Amino acid sequence: LTPFNLKQHISEYRQDPLSGRWVIIAEERANRPNQFDAVAETQEESWHRNCPFCPGHEKETPEEIDAIRPEDSRENDSRWLARVVPNRFPAITRDCPWNNGLLPHFGETFFFHKTAIPGYGAHEVLIESPRHLFSVTEFDDVEILNMFRLYQKRLQSLRSENHWGHVLIFKNVGAAAGASLSHTHSQLMAMPFVPPPILNELRHATEFRENKHRCYWCDMIKHELSEKVRVVAESEHFLLICPFACRFPMEISIFPKEHVSHFESLSENRVDELAFFVRKSVQILEKAVYWTREPLSYNMILKSAPFQTSSFDPEIYHFHLTILPSLAKAAGFEWGTGLHINPISPETAATKLREFV
Amino acid sequence: LTPFNLKQHISEYRQDPLSGRWVIIAEERANRPNQFDAVAETQEESWHRNCPFCPGHEKETPEEIDAIRPEDSRENDSRWLARVVPNRFPAITRDCPWNNGLLPHFGETFFFHKTAIPGYGAHEVLIESPRHLFSVTEFDDVEILNMFRLYQKRLQSLRSENHWGHVLIFKNVGAAAGASLSHTHSQLMAMPFVPPPILNELRHATEFRENKHRCYWCDMIKHELSEKVRVVAESEHFLLICPFACRFPMEISIFPKEHVSHFESLSENRVDELAFFVRKSVQILEKAVYWTREPLSYNMILKSAPFQTSSFDPEIYHFHLTILPSLAKAAGFEWGTGLHINPISPETAATKLREFV
Repeated sequence: LTPFNLKQHISEYRQDPLSGRWVIIAEERANRPNQFDAVAETQEESWHRNCPFCPGHEKETPEEIDAIRPEDSRENDSRWLARVVPNRFPAITRDCPWNNGLLPHFGETFFFHKTAIPGYGAHEVLIESPRHLFSVTEFDDVEILNMFRLYQKRLQSLRSENHWGHVLIFKNVGAAAGASLSHTHSQLMAMPFVPPPILNELRHATEFRENKHRCYWCDMIKHELSEKVRVVAESEHFLLICPFACRFPMEISIFPKEHVSHFESLSENRVDELAFFVRKSVQILEKAVYWTREPLSYNMILKSAPFQTSSFDPEIYHFHLTILPSLAKAAGFEWGTGLHINPISPETAATKLREFV
Repeated sequence: LTPFNLKQHISEYRQDPLSGRWVIIAEERANRPNQFDAVAETQEESWHRNCPFCPGHEKETPEEIDAIRPEDSRENDSRWLARVVPNRFPAITRDCPWNNGLLPHFGETFFFHKTAIPGYGAHEVLIESPRHLFSVTEFDDVEILNMFRLYQKRLQSLRSENHWGHVLIFKNVGAAAGASLSHTHSQLMAMPFVPPPILNELRHATEFRENKHRCYWCDMIKHELSEKVRVVAESEHFLLICPFACRFPMEISIFPKEHVSHFESLSENRVDELAFFVRKSVQILEKAVYWTREPLSYNMILKSAPFQTSSFDPEIYHFHLTILPSLAKAAGFEWGTGLHINPISPETAATKLREFV
């Protein structure tokens, strides 16, 4: 393992030898502005005026990677409907070396080497609407469709680059969920390897298929549909449930009822159905947690199969979306044991959520 | 696996078959009061007046389990110096069945059984001082010594019960760190099994010893002392470092320089040295993060060896304390991949912290 100097790179991946946990050390991130910190001092209007994601501020972001635009508009002009730009304060970047031959294999444990890898990756921001909106429940039909079409377009494009292990798309809504800007946006991070917890899911799903010749998630969905206690709502091809061992109060997940491993291979009709179903699901959630004083903060995570792994068949994965409302904080117990204490059972949560379908 | 009804028990442990993650579903917890929520409406004085942990309010907590008291005081009277009571809103309790014969072995993965176990355990609150203090840096010498002596007393007592797998002692300071009461306190949770991440550390430490015939942590400490870049401070027998692959900005850990697996077996002199060194460490931390507007919130976690495991020798563990300042939130990326993005490298953090030694 060639030693290298963090100063030469914007960031690095590091592994803790004992826990096997990886982290990304990304000092550039410390420089990003936090709009929510300034709320007390700023007026809502100046907040909008200074928003780097509002139309007319295209120069405050790096040049666009992709966009949904009217035919007569041009790249980087302000007449976009949705756009994708590199993160200005990236955790991982394309301009640093990634030489697989020199680097340790992922998933193994290295004792006492300083296991550090240059922070190679892509970190993009997907701005789903030119309007300064907060939550997907404020999106009109075009906006919610554009959001999921853009997710799919980016995944297809990154897949065709042929050297990424995995891409995570996620959306942090609100300061309590870790967002630093209020204008609605999603983020995408492409990594050259598959993160260990996702490899772990693939390992378990592979074992399950070897034993039962079925997809674990397909079985679980069948089971939940027959038990009904954790089911909240259904569309023709999608299912909204509170997961059996959920970590957070009012945590919800959306699954395609039929087996689809990769979100990017979902047909256009199904993408549209999913887009509307996700918006409806968050509406149900926001109504059900009316006890919070402020607009609900949440994380939305698209868990789609890795593009490629050396050990497992990614087709075994069953893509899904998970939404984690920011209603509880991880504290000493959670960080110390990895167990989460959830004060609302998924059965109670589902009962509550069904009132608002 | 005998099915049982959550309604019969205060809580249950559940495993997600795909990730292997366990959670504790504990609905009773939802009823606990959150003092920090009410801050806006309450005066500081009435806050103190209504504090269930201040002297004179002993009836608002369950009866004490242990205490440090003047010789002429009596159990549950208000003349205590430090006391331990059961958590009034416990996540796990002693009054539910735990029949090892019937229950799945921990650490294996069960597919599609609804893996749920009654929430058996002990959940205690350690009130280290009768004074309504916030952080350990406000503790006088007697208070900081009592804190660590009480930690040791409780660990020794629970160990002698001979049926606990592991005890975690942790301290959440401030609302941002997940505390719901402002009066200084620690918590203890005793579980009949060893949490998977701790088993994982034992597994890696065992592999390391088999290969190198040394303790991983002893080696790491030697390495850090020779490299110096992540060392912040030392006492005669203890070392304060910023860990190589830390998840959080300004995360710090304190290790005994010589091998000690179990905190409860540390000699009295060393316990006292550690107590003062921890207080000093948090002082350094609080001075170094002066940029936060409010008193620093943090989690303190005592990572001591499990009492007993079926697969590993707990003596291989090297106890330590970890302090996680609440300066960053886990968001979509962290929950989706298990990787944390840390915007301050431990080398930068250590440089900053050394200014305040």
